[in-house]
Amino acid sequence: MVRTSNARQDAIEAAVRLFRTQGYSATGLTQLLEESGAPKGSFYFHFPGGKEQLALEALQVFGAEVRGRIERRASELAQDPAAFIHAMFDATARELEKSDYTAGCVASNLGGELSSGNRPIADAVTAVIQSWVEAIADGLQSRFETREAAVAFASTVMASLSGMRTMARAQRSTAMFTAIANVLVAGLPPARP
Amino acid sequence: MVRTSNARQDAIEAAVRLFRTQGYSATGLTQLLEESGAPKGSFYFHFPGGKEQLALEALQVFGAEVRGRIERRASELAQDPAAFIHAMFDATARELEKSDYTAGCVASNLGGELSSGNRPIADAVTAVIQSWVEAIADGLQSRFETREAAVAFASTVMASLSGMRTMARAQRSTAMFTAIANVLVAGLPPARP
Repeated sequence: MVRTSNARQDAIEAAVRLFRTQGYSATGLTQLLEESGAPKGSFYFHFPGGKEQLALEALQVFGAEVRGRIERRASELAQDPAAFIHAMFDATARELEKSDYTAGCVASNLGGELSSGNRPIADAVTAVIQSWVEAIADGLQSRFETREAAVAFASTVMASLSGMRTMARAQRSTAMFTAIANVLVAGLPPARP
Repeated sequence: MVRTSNARQDAIEAAVRLFRTQGYSATGLTQLLEESGAPKGSFYFHFPGGKEQLALEALQVFGAEVRGRIERRASELAQDPAAFIHAMFDATARELEKSDYTAGCVASNLGGELSSGNRPIADAVTAVIQSWVEAIADGLQSRFETREAAVAFASTVMASLSGMRTMARAQRSTAMFTAIANVLVAGLPPARP
């Protein structure tokens, strides 16, 4: 049964799920309509810009959800950046295991496929990743004297998490997550007095 | 003019280029044939397994080329792991700039798109990335007492490089490469006596 009132939300959720698992190009409109249960007319009513518009909205929704999770952890663990780093790597590892390694990253997948050919989506990917880096930097800030240094370290954490997610999905293993978190934590400057 | 004798190599080169720029799903057989200049019959003569076989061979070729570059640097800079890390980040940044940010990673793109749906390609992605991690660990080994510790650090370098490449392509900027290399170098254990 089509829940018309939720058609828009259902389409975005289906897009997030499919873009995470198989990326943008492999996800056709037919599969999106099937998985969201929406009729084609309803889809174009909600997304007159078609799949590209849906991708931009899926990026916003996925970006805000991930940012919210980072912010909550950063706030809880602001006094313990080492625990914050471990919490992010642990959460990503658990998510991968729970999803049977389907849980890719919308931003990373769309970035890899579309950076060279679709500037609006590449810009949205950049904005989403930048918002995550800033949220991570907030959680690490207590160990750094300058914002610049916290952002550089946060970018390293972000890049490592992103690269590790891709590697782990192919490997079907989260074995290296703790090791990488340990390497990053060992590289943190010492707690300030 | 079709250079029949090179048809096989041309198809693999076109596949590497297209998989780096736009990924697997967006790369159709028509575009592969156009860019490699091969007739369809010749393509299926060389690649009876079609696009999947071509992808497996493109992964091998790309994997060996990148591994060769890492091994040369690891060998030259085996006594200076900090310079080795900087050399890898610098080379990736220059490659991105020179390619106008089209130079994605075949392994990362195919991994993101196909890990959940194509086990042979996911296994090939895993093997290629593992070979790079081992080559990086060789270049870092002089700073570590155990192979396990060198591999953990090398995995962090690999994941950071991979994630940073994806981020930089979307951002069209290599500004963070040096900062991330600095963070990793600062996390290296001190030189052993």
